[in-house]
Amino acid sequence: MLYIVFCEQAIEAFGVGRVVASGHPDFEKDDLVAGLISWGEYSIVKGAIMLNKLDPMGFPLSYHVGILGFSGLTAFGGFFEICKPKKERKVFVSAASGSVGNLVGQYAKLFGCYVVGCAGTKQKVELLKEKLGFDDAFNYKEETDLNSALKRHFPDGIDIYFDNVGAEMLEAAVANMNTFGRVAVCGVISEYTDARKRAAPSMLDVVYKQINIRGFLAADLMSVYADFISTTVDHLRNGKIHVLEDISRGVDSIPNAFMGLFRGDNVGKKIVQIADE
Amino acid sequence: MLYIVFCEQAIEAFGVGRVVASGHPDFEKDDLVAGLISWGEYSIVKGAIMLNKLDPMGFPLSYHVGILGFSGLTAFGGFFEICKPKKERKVFVSAASGSVGNLVGQYAKLFGCYVVGCAGTKQKVELLKEKLGFDDAFNYKEETDLNSALKRHFPDGIDIYFDNVGAEMLEAAVANMNTFGRVAVCGVISEYTDARKRAAPSMLDVVYKQINIRGFLAADLMSVYADFISTTVDHLRNGKIHVLEDISRGVDSIPNAFMGLFRGDNVGKKIVQIADE
Repeated sequence: MLYIVFCEQAIEAFGVGRVVASGHPDFEKDDLVAGLISWGEYSIVKGAIMLNKLDPMGFPLSYHVGILGFSGLTAFGGFFEICKPKKERKVFVSAASGSVGNLVGQYAKLFGCYVVGCAGTKQKVELLKEKLGFDDAFNYKEETDLNSALKRHFPDGIDIYFDNVGAEMLEAAVANMNTFGRVAVCGVISEYTDARKRAAPSMLDVVYKQINIRGFLAADLMSVYADFISTTVDHLRNGKIHVLEDISRGVDSIPNAFMGLFRGDNVGKKIVQIADE
Repeated sequence: MLYIVFCEQAIEAFGVGRVVASGHPDFEKDDLVAGLISWGEYSIVKGAIMLNKLDPMGFPLSYHVGILGFSGLTAFGGFFEICKPKKERKVFVSAASGSVGNLVGQYAKLFGCYVVGCAGTKQKVELLKEKLGFDDAFNYKEETDLNSALKRHFPDGIDIYFDNVGAEMLEAAVANMNTFGRVAVCGVISEYTDARKRAAPSMLDVVYKQINIRGFLAADLMSVYADFISTTVDHLRNGKIHVLEDISRGVDSIPNAFMGLFRGDNVGKKIVQIADE
């Protein structure tokens, strides 16, 4: 079997697979591996620098490209290291049903924060509230004024904004932020699709409310990797965290899966299963 | 005598003066005091909560509303606490001949950084290079493309941007920033004068270069106050730091002094001397 997910801007792919033949002393036939591989049913990896043996720990292999992979690390490290939360803080997550957003919200709830998410369909909003335990959620496409929407959901202001989208949502979040608020900038869906759709948050707000806006990449969060794995495995074994996967099958599904990321088609981690076991 | 400076948005004034009469047990006639007072030759202060006795330490009184007052603390704390510099880092300062900017540049040079400043007249640029020891400086009004101007002055990228202006300069600085670059947002001259003139920096840059943008106020930097005073007094006594003051005299000069801040008239700290000793 081979599970592959889109990596950064899909230039390379992160996946898990099983070794069918190896000339490398560290890997043997039938070993499970995770790392950077190319798109396809079979992948020739030279040097193996970006490939590691994988211990599935009893979980489905797909978990290792999602909740136990980079998406999980990004959510866990981004929330705990970049947002530096305290219990009962008010947390807002955009693209909250996405691969990272849904986990940020769940980690934040398990940690004791008040969490509101936004998403782009009624079904996603229901999912956040009913299944993932968000305190509240709203469909941003139904709002004419994001500033008012956030004021309504955060009458006492936002302490932490986990930003996956940029643009107007970031502006509205900064406008509704409390003193010493923190913005973790994880993704910028708006700019991926249109470089002109930039956020222009009020820098007066940034100064007077002493706001911290910080971009980050999962690769810089390896210091929390061990903590991330042990915490997440515990949550999984205790049934406290919900795994949202959106799996399509076969090489043919790759283009649509990729484009769907920008249309907001996916719910949870978008994964392409290239081959069965 | 009475020296007064503009405080935040000039709603209140920060000044030094001499007590002419006191009914408060902590203050006696002829005591020097510093704190929030009203504009005028004489000021009645009730409660004295925002007023402290002042030890001039042998320095002119005007220093205590500038380099040894909030401007100095903002520059010192903003640079060392918010920018977290290391030696040889590349530092860019906007409004670099202003009350805070000129000190940031001087602290950064004394610390061992490479420093480039920008200002709005040829004279200011000369001053930065000739008198204050900046490695380089440029007149932003002579540049048609701020992005190219910064690329020219920072071929290896910017590590730290001390922002006093916002808008296009902040955008250009983010575009030229190195990985893990830090932006300390101290002031937003552009938005003071026109709320629509906002910065729209690329959030893709913020994510991929893991940039930290942080607003701050001097009031939150009191933890470094003792260090700020001892370091700055040392620099002053050793003649290593240059004091830039722009003093106008008399109550009549207040309106023009205030408006001049937004026109960029002042060089260094704008101070109004209300009364002679």
